[in-house]
Amino acid sequence: MDTQTFFSHSRKQIEEKLNDLLFCPSQIPFSDLFTSASYSLAGPGKRLRPLLVLATGATYGVSLDKALIPACALEMIHTYSLIHDDLPCMDDDDLRRGKPTLHKIVPQWQALLTGDFLLTYAFEILSTAPQLNAEQKVALVHSLSTHAGAHGMIGGQMIDLMCEGETIDWELLEKMHQGKTASLIAAALQFGAIIAEASPTDVALLKQAGYAAGVAFQLIDDVLDYTSTEQELGKPIGSDHKKSKATAVTLLGVDSAKQKAVDLLEAADTHLKSLSRPSPLIRALFDQMVNRRK
Amino acid sequence: MDTQTFFSHSRKQIEEKLNDLLFCPSQIPFSDLFTSASYSLAGPGKRLRPLLVLATGATYGVSLDKALIPACALEMIHTYSLIHDDLPCMDDDDLRRGKPTLHKIVPQWQALLTGDFLLTYAFEILSTAPQLNAEQKVALVHSLSTHAGAHGMIGGQMIDLMCEGETIDWELLEKMHQGKTASLIAAALQFGAIIAEASPTDVALLKQAGYAAGVAFQLIDDVLDYTSTEQELGKPIGSDHKKSKATAVTLLGVDSAKQKAVDLLEAADTHLKSLSRPSPLIRALFDQMVNRRK
Repeated sequence: MDTQTFFSHSRKQIEEKLNDLLFCPSQIPFSDLFTSASYSLAGPGKRLRPLLVLATGATYGVSLDKALIPACALEMIHTYSLIHDDLPCMDDDDLRRGKPTLHKIVPQWQALLTGDFLLTYAFEILSTAPQLNAEQKVALVHSLSTHAGAHGMIGGQMIDLMCEGETIDWELLEKMHQGKTASLIAAALQFGAIIAEASPTDVALLKQAGYAAGVAFQLIDDVLDYTSTEQELGKPIGSDHKKSKATAVTLLGVDSAKQKAVDLLEAADTHLKSLSRPSPLIRALFDQMVNRRK
Repeated sequence: MDTQTFFSHSRKQIEEKLNDLLFCPSQIPFSDLFTSASYSLAGPGKRLRPLLVLATGATYGVSLDKALIPACALEMIHTYSLIHDDLPCMDDDDLRRGKPTLHKIVPQWQALLTGDFLLTYAFEILSTAPQLNAEQKVALVHSLSTHAGAHGMIGGQMIDLMCEGETIDWELLEKMHQGKTASLIAAALQFGAIIAEASPTDVALLKQAGYAAGVAFQLIDDVLDYTSTEQELGKPIGSDHKKSKATAVTLLGVDSAKQKAVDLLEAADTHLKSLSRPSPLIRALFDQMVNRRK
């Protein structure tokens, strides 16, 4: 299977599995929770994190079936974070993935609960994921909770909101990007490695590669927020700038931010080259993360 | 050790462990997340759920050390749910455990993130809990995620908010109470049983007992919301009534609601009496849940 066929097939499997996982008979009194979770999970997202899980698994010969549920768990965590981040008390955004944000179409309390639900449900599906032994499930729960927690995604979001309107240095901005964005990217690669029972050396390399590519991805996000159009991006542009948020562009300028992303991509590539296996699928996704227009 | 000594000793251990788990050096840029989590977790809560974990464990001779971290995980989940429920877009409450609610002393976004953090952290500490094997950890993650999820606590909260201002019947009210409140109580007993590796028969009995006692507990909550004082309760009274929420009191009246709680307590007791061991510690906690003034 060539790279593009692998991605289009995987993407289809991810969409179908997410759909299955969110099915709920309408007579259940809280079925709206599933409906609003489905709304936010539905395309046209990049599915970057679950694709990275599947690509890393495939690098070690793991079947798609074995990696699919953990991949979906990661997408649920990513989606809950978007729902909560978009709320009026956080970033107050109206548009996401080219559609109104969830709290624009359901009451705010329902959006908040939907986020809580997806966060909780991600751990539930890890605990019942097929074809994995108990040690692997515990390792996945640990990876997800740490990368999505205070020392990962939530910590990054905390820095972001604390520093609104403040001048921050590159060191703190990098910490924020590592937490907010790179942490779940690194978790995706670690997920693949746990499922494949890769060697500790490979696990460490994959995590390092994930962090480098993840920060590069966020640098490009910062650039696109400044240079793209709302139509192309599917979310408001210039919104970080309007909120006086520190971004790579305000700190470094467009060209240097782009260059830093390219350098980080190279660093990620070096880590990948040291793996015990060739990893063209991961490399292809990393490329898409940096060389993109939306 | 007599019952009262067991509870006061256990409560002290829970407080200390929660304190340890929330320690964070102040130079870490997101340390405020830990500070606000500590604020919400700090007393004078009843610690009902963690005490039920320890009491159930002790019923089967499990050491406090082995059950303490899972007990704290459950208290974290309970606390995150209070933080989110108190937010302006949910119940909009200003007082909790006799203190201002978290969002009254930190920005709303920080309260929201603190809830997300505690929810995520609960799963992290389960994944690294000492003295438990991987199967037990997976069983705890499964129990927590299902009881705190759509078919448990979040589903109950969803019904609660959907039905504001509506007339609902006892069947739906019971479903709401089972989800919102009894679900985590049942999880607490199941946690103890998982840690103790109790027989499937005992696990089933403990869960049934937990659901019955949990609904009884919520019925008394509804009664106290109607009959107590703000000072005694440590949170606003009559707030459910003001929000036109359906409660056991609006549906059944004070006396019938109390009687139903007593009946449910008896049902819970019958389940406990069928266990393979005597369970005076659990029975004592159930009694406190129903015969209380705050």
